[in-house]
Amino acid sequence: MARSRLTPERETELYAAVLDLLRESGYDALTMDAIAARTHCSKATLYRQWGSKPELVAKAVRHDQPVSLTRVDTGTLRGDLIAGLELSDDCQMERDSALMRSLIHAVHHNPELLQALRHALIEPEITGVDEMLKRAVRRGEVDAGNPALKLVPHMMIGAFISRPLIDEKPVDLEFLRAYVDAVVLPALGA
Amino acid sequence: MARSRLTPERETELYAAVLDLLRESGYDALTMDAIAARTHCSKATLYRQWGSKPELVAKAVRHDQPVSLTRVDTGTLRGDLIAGLELSDDCQMERDSALMRSLIHAVHHNPELLQALRHALIEPEITGVDEMLKRAVRRGEVDAGNPALKLVPHMMIGAFISRPLIDEKPVDLEFLRAYVDAVVLPALGA
Repeated sequence: MARSRLTPERETELYAAVLDLLRESGYDALTMDAIAARTHCSKATLYRQWGSKPELVAKAVRHDQPVSLTRVDTGTLRGDLIAGLELSDDCQMERDSALMRSLIHAVHHNPELLQALRHALIEPEITGVDEMLKRAVRRGEVDAGNPALKLVPHMMIGAFISRPLIDEKPVDLEFLRAYVDAVVLPALGA
Repeated sequence: MARSRLTPERETELYAAVLDLLRESGYDALTMDAIAARTHCSKATLYRQWGSKPELVAKAVRHDQPVSLTRVDTGTLRGDLIAGLELSDDCQMERDSALMRSLIHAVHHNPELLQALRHALIEPEITGVDEMLKRAVRRGEVDAGNPALKLVPHMMIGAFISRPLIDEKPVDLEFLRAYVDAVVLPALGA
């Protein structure tokens, strides 16, 4: 790839515009023409700099700074899970949810894009939740052999994605808090 | 809408082809040109018959016969949930999962499409699971006030969608059975 001719600020701005477009139109319908128009960047520059749409989108997704759960440590599992949710406001949740929806079909046909999505949204959550669960097991709150220990990210991502489909409402903090109390903690026997 | 000039068999065949294309390319990138080419139907006929892409896709999705959970009644909640899963084989699950993925972004911008998806995949599940849960409450297996009673479809759709994202594996019966035992039944206190 050619050496970057864009300043870091311009690059950050451009990635943000790509993610906005992605949330609007979905990955499959996103075109390099639309990106060029939105970012006021020529298609020649886009192709020289990133090679192709999958590479540009993967870079933009990876550039999004994930919320880090690792600085949360309240002393109880419930406290940690709720505090972890509260790191995002409702607006950030809706943005993350829209980003995940925009990529969910395409990642099944594009391994590089799946890795970018995992890096930006999924692995930080898995790693952060794993730390919380390890501490809960050490404190004796959860049994080390509980099979739900491996399934907390599934439960949480599930709540996150299915809320609009089932209840026709955006995902928000209030719903996720209730879900932690009704589903996640009882499944863990905590 | 003009009176149908297609036989019911031809119509069924055409809807099946639309769903195949949808699973492949995703809703946002699906074009009437691609549908015309795949179905050997002229675009003029498609527009005369269905008016627009959203209408045609919604009709095709609604035409897909949902699995009916209402004929399942084994006498226990666990038996009902597992038997409900076993009505679909792994191949059908992957097909349903691909269909949901293909529509998940578009339904947020298209209420008619959301209703078609709810009709075909979501409401039959909600209704079927509700019947199972009502019987479980009547038998005393689950407390009538358990807040997880309203969240079983969220848990199940969550497992269904997050399996490939988190574990990079297709959703299958074995995983869903383990999920019922580790998450759904403990959350219900059953």
